[in-house]
Amino acid sequence: MKIAVDVMGGDFAPISVIDGILLAIDSLNSNEKILAVGPQQTIEKLLAERNYSGNQIEIISAEQVIEMGEHPTKALSQKPNSSIGVGFSLLKSEQADVFASAGNTGAMMVGSLFSVKTIQGIQRPAIAGFVPQVNGEFAVMLDIGANADCKPEMLEQFGILGSIYFEATTGKKKPRVGLMNIGEEEQKGSILAQAAHTLLKNNKNIHFIGNLEGKDLFRNKADVIVTDGFTGNIMLKMAESFYFIMEEQGVKNDFIELTNYETYGGSPIIGINGNVVIAHGASTPKAIQQMIKLSKSLVESGVLKKIKKALEN
Amino acid sequence: MKIAVDVMGGDFAPISVIDGILLAIDSLNSNEKILAVGPQQTIEKLLAERNYSGNQIEIISAEQVIEMGEHPTKALSQKPNSSIGVGFSLLKSEQADVFASAGNTGAMMVGSLFSVKTIQGIQRPAIAGFVPQVNGEFAVMLDIGANADCKPEMLEQFGILGSIYFEATTGKKKPRVGLMNIGEEEQKGSILAQAAHTLLKNNKNIHFIGNLEGKDLFRNKADVIVTDGFTGNIMLKMAESFYFIMEEQGVKNDFIELTNYETYGGSPIIGINGNVVIAHGASTPKAIQQMIKLSKSLVESGVLKKIKKALEN
Repeated sequence: MKIAVDVMGGDFAPISVIDGILLAIDSLNSNEKILAVGPQQTIEKLLAERNYSGNQIEIISAEQVIEMGEHPTKALSQKPNSSIGVGFSLLKSEQADVFASAGNTGAMMVGSLFSVKTIQGIQRPAIAGFVPQVNGEFAVMLDIGANADCKPEMLEQFGILGSIYFEATTGKKKPRVGLMNIGEEEQKGSILAQAAHTLLKNNKNIHFIGNLEGKDLFRNKADVIVTDGFTGNIMLKMAESFYFIMEEQGVKNDFIELTNYETYGGSPIIGINGNVVIAHGASTPKAIQQMIKLSKSLVESGVLKKIKKALEN
Repeated sequence: MKIAVDVMGGDFAPISVIDGILLAIDSLNSNEKILAVGPQQTIEKLLAERNYSGNQIEIISAEQVIEMGEHPTKALSQKPNSSIGVGFSLLKSEQADVFASAGNTGAMMVGSLFSVKTIQGIQRPAIAGFVPQVNGEFAVMLDIGANADCKPEMLEQFGILGSIYFEATTGKKKPRVGLMNIGEEEQKGSILAQAAHTLLKNNKNIHFIGNLEGKDLFRNKADVIVTDGFTGNIMLKMAESFYFIMEEQGVKNDFIELTNYETYGGSPIIGINGNVVIAHGASTPKAIQQMIKLSKSLVESGVLKKIKKALEN
């Protein structure tokens, strides 16, 4: 397996990414390699300073950098030799099995759509976020930001994509799918939520358990939480802010610790023709280590093939 | 001042409401009265059991009850002698200065629209929720559930209504207004959020500070948080669930305590021709006490007149 990692992605790159790669290396098998994508000399220097002499890191030269604030489409077309641009080339040409970055989320999304492209039959790919549950497990919420405006059919498909992803990565059959809404009853909520409820309820490939409310988010009521990218993004960032406020105030608790973004290492993009993981911009070495672990599990789960197969039926 | 209270409203009514009224009585002036709306004999019995012999509680007989799960419009038309129905009659005939209930939220909303009605020039009234801030103060968020689907112009008006309400109740001039969105930049977000951003930015009666993200909700960046009722409801219920999870896990902290719904006592409906407060269904006596305090401050703030005056300009 070859895991391409954007060395220049994130607020603390390249140092935190190199340190994260070195943390992750120990848990990889001998046939698993990291393709460290970024400026050759910088990476060589950082690895030498850390006395790395193994053979599981292969440097792939990419001398340009897409900054966090840059316009995704413009940046990708103007900087083909950026670490994100080269990462997607590796993915498209199947020289890498997965590409992961803590860099510009928009560029990662646009890069996915332009290189490996959306799987045929998928209306819009979604970013899947992990939501900690009070029982210590996690749920998958999608979309968490790729699609600010959604149609009911998109939410229905997020239910299918989330189910396949959850089952492929956890082994749990028939994952429970809930729709984020503002009331339990079917007729409650926005026009979008009402229409999506009907579609999800009538889809035989989904184990739909009905509406969820904001108070149910962490309550282990569903394995897959379906919502539009606007609502999902706000909820996830709100949960994260609870973590930071509690940390600032010195409150320690196992559940709060689970809301730390370092726990999961990132969010896969689901519905594209390749394995892509987006990590938090403020990723620490520990978060990068988790990002690599998540990338590996994404490949091993075979979720990509499973989604394609499901769409053929 | 006459504060009408729905004795039959809430999961623990009538006992918690009567106990809450008795807790609140001490802080009222001699010219301030509670109109206890509900079944006469029940209220008389409960007050006698509690040895109440004062003259600040006046019982207003209402022998029917609208249950939590009932359809609002149907229930109100079929039960004119319900505590909610009678409460709105008192408000409309100006026998009460404010009406407060922990009962069926939908019925409270419909009752407002049918009795005192929307203020002329207001597109849709909103429910205003209190959001604790890390500095110990609070922000007002609207809408938190009355309008699941909003138009940009409604969000603009929520900015105006929220500003008038915040200034009238806190005395703070030129309250900061933020728009909940999924990115800081103007062009980020849903079609609704983008259009609302432009309207809020160009409205000279609003001190607009730009977009907020989910992570900013508690960060004291804005005094007035503008959002649609779908997103606002989910955020508020999510904050509340954090409080309950932390309470269950025995975590104590001043900030967490502020997310307890008992702290604020309820949510005023803003944009109607009367003072109405909706409290949490699970209101305890302490929450009812706060609901009465909030109702009193709503009348004293003169926010109703201020909104009408602002709309004349």
